[in-house]
Amino acid sequence: MAVLRSYVAGAWRVPEGEGTPVADAVTGEEVARISTAGIDRAAALEHGRAVGGPALRGLTFHQRAALLKALGSHLRDHREELYALSARAGATLNDAKFDVDGGIGVLLGYASKAKRELPNDTVLVEGEVEPLGKGGTFVGQHLCTPLRGVAIQINAFNFPVWGPLEKLAPAFVAGMPSLIKPASQTAYITARLVELIVESGLLPEGSVQLLCGDAGDLLDHVTEQDVVGFTGSAGTAQRLRTHPALVGRSVRFNAEADSLNCSILGPDAVPGTEEFDLYVKQLVAEMTVKAGQKCTAIRRALVPGHLMDEVAEAARERLSRITVGNPASPDVRMGALVSLDQREEVRRSLKALLDAARPVYGDPETVQVVDADAERGAFLSPILLRADDTGRAEPHEVEAFGPVSTLLPYRDTAHAVELAARGRGSLAGSVVTADPVFAREIVLGAAPWHGRLLVLNGEDAKESTGHGSALPALVHGGPGRAGGGEELGGIRAVVHHMQRTAVQSGPAMMTELTGRWVPGTDRTVTEVHPFRKHLEDLRVGDTAVGGPRTVTLDDVEHFAEFTGDTFYAHMDDAAAKANPFFGGRVAHGYLVVSFAAGLFVDPDQGPVLANYGLENLRFLTPVYPGDELTVTLTAKQISPRDGAPYGEVRWDTDVTNQDGASVAKYDVLTLVAKRPAA
Amino acid sequence: MAVLRSYVAGAWRVPEGEGTPVADAVTGEEVARISTAGIDRAAALEHGRAVGGPALRGLTFHQRAALLKALGSHLRDHREELYALSARAGATLNDAKFDVDGGIGVLLGYASKAKRELPNDTVLVEGEVEPLGKGGTFVGQHLCTPLRGVAIQINAFNFPVWGPLEKLAPAFVAGMPSLIKPASQTAYITARLVELIVESGLLPEGSVQLLCGDAGDLLDHVTEQDVVGFTGSAGTAQRLRTHPALVGRSVRFNAEADSLNCSILGPDAVPGTEEFDLYVKQLVAEMTVKAGQKCTAIRRALVPGHLMDEVAEAARERLSRITVGNPASPDVRMGALVSLDQREEVRRSLKALLDAARPVYGDPETVQVVDADAERGAFLSPILLRADDTGRAEPHEVEAFGPVSTLLPYRDTAHAVELAARGRGSLAGSVVTADPVFAREIVLGAAPWHGRLLVLNGEDAKESTGHGSALPALVHGGPGRAGGGEELGGIRAVVHHMQRTAVQSGPAMMTELTGRWVPGTDRTVTEVHPFRKHLEDLRVGDTAVGGPRTVTLDDVEHFAEFTGDTFYAHMDDAAAKANPFFGGRVAHGYLVVSFAAGLFVDPDQGPVLANYGLENLRFLTPVYPGDELTVTLTAKQISPRDGAPYGEVRWDTDVTNQDGASVAKYDVLTLVAKRPAA
Repeated sequence: MAVLRSYVAGAWRVPEGEGTPVADAVTGEEVARISTAGIDRAAALEHGRAVGGPALRGLTFHQRAALLKALGSHLRDHREELYALSARAGATLNDAKFDVDGGIGVLLGYASKAKRELPNDTVLVEGEVEPLGKGGTFVGQHLCTPLRGVAIQINAFNFPVWGPLEKLAPAFVAGMPSLIKPASQTAYITARLVELIVESGLLPEGSVQLLCGDAGDLLDHVTEQDVVGFTGSAGTAQRLRTHPALVGRSVRFNAEADSLNCSILGPDAVPGTEEFDLYVKQLVAEMTVKAGQKCTAIRRALVPGHLMDEVAEAARERLSRITVGNPASPDVRMGALVSLDQREEVRRSLKALLDAARPVYGDPETVQVVDADAERGAFLSPILLRADDTGRAEPHEVEAFGPVSTLLPYRDTAHAVELAARGRGSLAGSVVTADPVFAREIVLGAAPWHGRLLVLNGEDAKESTGHGSALPALVHGGPGRAGGGEELGGIRAVVHHMQRTAVQSGPAMMTELTGRWVPGTDRTVTEVHPFRKHLEDLRVGDTAVGGPRTVTLDDVEHFAEFTGDTFYAHMDDAAAKANPFFGGRVAHGYLVVSFAAGLFVDPDQGPVLANYGLENLRFLTPVYPGDELTVTLTAKQISPRDGAPYGEVRWDTDVTNQDGASVAKYDVLTLVAKRPAA
Repeated sequence: MAVLRSYVAGAWRVPEGEGTPVADAVTGEEVARISTAGIDRAAALEHGRAVGGPALRGLTFHQRAALLKALGSHLRDHREELYALSARAGATLNDAKFDVDGGIGVLLGYASKAKRELPNDTVLVEGEVEPLGKGGTFVGQHLCTPLRGVAIQINAFNFPVWGPLEKLAPAFVAGMPSLIKPASQTAYITARLVELIVESGLLPEGSVQLLCGDAGDLLDHVTEQDVVGFTGSAGTAQRLRTHPALVGRSVRFNAEADSLNCSILGPDAVPGTEEFDLYVKQLVAEMTVKAGQKCTAIRRALVPGHLMDEVAEAARERLSRITVGNPASPDVRMGALVSLDQREEVRRSLKALLDAARPVYGDPETVQVVDADAERGAFLSPILLRADDTGRAEPHEVEAFGPVSTLLPYRDTAHAVELAARGRGSLAGSVVTADPVFAREIVLGAAPWHGRLLVLNGEDAKESTGHGSALPALVHGGPGRAGGGEELGGIRAVVHHMQRTAVQSGPAMMTELTGRWVPGTDRTVTEVHPFRKHLEDLRVGDTAVGGPRTVTLDDVEHFAEFTGDTFYAHMDDAAAKANPFFGGRVAHGYLVVSFAAGLFVDPDQGPVLANYGLENLRFLTPVYPGDELTVTLTAKQISPRDGAPYGEVRWDTDVTNQDGASVAKYDVLTLVAKRPAA
């Protein structure tokens, strides 16, 4: 059996020596050998920094997103191969899809988020310009720039495809290269994944590397600009967190650790309700999907005390229909654990749990298997326990990382919140209820202890992705026992791979630094109206000034009649005066912005294609009949769109009265054509 | 001399024993004694969790902000007393103001930010609702809830007032109690500060405690819900970061450590320019303010090689005018270091620096002092060094935490960026230039290594707060050597004290959980128009439906003529058809929103006071003559304002056409009166 190769410094490297065998979870046969002997780990980091980083930083967020999207399609075309390999690790087809399709989903999710929520640029301008002086000559702006190191990911065995991809996607969008270190037990699946990535030729060289085996001295070589993302046990997280190089260089370390997640049944969800069935169904699914080897799985099922028996009975009935065996067999609902060692580990944890709980379903030592050898494969029955004494520590502290959950009774809402918190920090929790008052008390009470909370009931059951699924748009991670980290969550995870820097300067300098026009910067009133300029010819600061136009009482009355907006503040002088904000009848805000458009628009056919929106409109000063309006429209941000004949232009719009006071400020959003191809 | 008391568990506690003397920095006399012997540290944490936390969490963000504002005023009234005490630590009046007024400024800054940027609520709803299913029955929303522990602050000696207040303010706004542990050298100033806070009676009991002296076993008692914020040396940061309790419980640890900050002179800023003078003036100020005992001070002055002599000469001339001595004396420009030990420490660092640099100004062993005894007080001359060999490690690694800087020559922009990065992570950097190209290259090149970067020149010089000033609105912290942390930065630092939780549910449940109407939730079309309801009577989901109204070609032409907006897409059928988005003449967006207002408004005098703005308007489908518009206006968020007879109501607005397609979506922002007082 050949030893798995690592992809380091631009080439596939064969390790020295024989390597350590990795066994098929189902048959016990050797499926691969693994080693990183002789692989130069420092060179991998150096290559990422010197080659991968610069290549990525040369692309815009949108360009990186387009590559991720293409990679997602490529992997989708090859997913059958990854499913087949996954079966050797004990995964049923559904388990494999959860991992593989989930991973591809993260790539596509990030591609889409980055396109919509990030600029087509290499720097992320975050938040608003902060005025730092009363005179307007000193401002601040936060910029996020990609870290100049490597995003090192140290992954767990249970998600050999999703794990690397969920860490790769935000790092890649941020402009940071990744080094993937899979767990040994399923490294052969990750190795094939990386082969598919490399074979695709889609990603810049150096942006993805693979260290297939022992990390060795890898962490000795990290520097201030690297980040380390770890998924696995709380114990290993602690060991890595205190590594001298990480501590000495303040290296960003993100841990996502298994936790004692709970699912809470609402008191309203009595037998016969949809929620009762949803609860039991979800509990059994979380126990058996991936044979319970999910860091988000339900370990503690919190149930109103008087419903314990009913829940136990319904779960037992459902569990009895779970066939265990060869995951490649179509009749099998639950496959094997990843290894015989892992089964021993789970049995050890079960022994501790059984001091405080009694079995409701399943036997740690015996399981009937379909189409497989129960001794050679790492099979284990699903095991549901019941701990009627909630004061015991074990159910809240001992994690059996397999198809194992414990039923625990709670007395009232406060007790349920207290028990949830006894997990001392969880990745995910769920509450199954149709009662919004109960849901709100649980969610707000348990939130400080959770990275994610699902409220499940008839409203969302059909579309819910369930207790255990981390989604790219939502944060994944949790406090305390769960590692204290945060992954995913949309653009948040991109920013985790960037340095946030507060930049201070004058407004004109800030305009130069960010490419966005900052108020206080000189405007350029050009001879040609800016609406007559194609995208490439327009510059931030290009300005049109229109007006003045006097707003008459006739205008107000006419507009009211025409639109039907006869609100008292416009029509009734006495009523308007009685209002705390107005000294008499005022013009409609909509009239002001309509007149402003009439003043700034250049009507002839030209590069401006459409006004697609308006943002941050504030009416700042009332407009009274007789007031004269002037509008100043300034190109604030110009965003060419890749692969389209146009881009977006955001215009700073300031409508002022005869005293120079702003009556309305807002951003006008337009689409502007690029120059026609010659 | 009495031993400084700690304020723990609701009372001032006198420590056991004699305590350790703290010396006056100027006279060497004993100024206080310090000890925490016999103080129950675990009880302090427990009190914060059990008393302070619940009290704070019972207040809204706005209520907490109001208390901070009141505290700021109270401290301002007593600042003279803090100035006077500061002189005993070696601070001139200006130094003391920097510390005391700066700290009060943070309180007021956070009070103002929280009022403007946070809701009048106890939970922070962060970001947008995330659709998680195509059918719209499953959505996600991030909530931030206060951590249930104590924000432990371990402070440095150099900012005995600003340090505690800059950490207290965001924790307090978040709803987390603080435990302040000052550094021994200046603990007597912090102790007086906390006395002033406690005497004011403004803050809820348990929200601020003081542990005045050795931390002892404090950190052994931290749990998952506490946070630890440290300011001080990189070495201590590393030691605390690896504390077993912090590591074992994934306690959030934020470090802000001294760093080798640089200031870069632009090649354009030759002698005779305003920028040259600004550079030298700022360099000398950073060396001498607080006798250079600032973690943000300039340690490395990067200068174009050919300007080294001129900069050295100009700095020498300016430094020669710095009088050193008793900080209480009006003639003195620079006071003492905080202690004789600190002076020894600086002299040791200077010895290392002098291996790689030569002195330009000052003698480590001799200084002329005004109105003081040079031996009994911790006086030191400002010392400017010059290291012509930039390859030597010392200037980039050895920090002399006193009035010490080193001039270093750079060759070109890339070299300047490289040298900046050799600090391996800095809190603050500055570049003094009027050249935007140079500024942009430095800022984008050095940003990954910096928490803050100032561009200083003629544009912002008048209002600039300078290289060394951390501001509440901007992040403070830096990567690597600077500790890898982040403080301040406006609401960001509030969120650092909260747990972010992704909540998943159906839309109606999400509306119940957040109190904000989420699209997909049933609307309540009430018999009474919602514009007729006072704030207390209005409910999220209350809805008005108006229309349909047909938009005619006459309407479009009339609106164009009336407003002057004769843009071709509205007026010229052929030109509109040539546009990629339209099939012919379209109605103005402004016409659509104006008609929509006419359809949803209830005109009579009533509780709706004003439309103060509009947000997130998107035109989604073109409106053609003949289209029929219907508008649906739904109360989305209701925010009573404390101390005002009205509040804000945000209305979800959806304008649809005859096919049910949305043509425009936006939020209308109104002010709505509360019920008149009976």
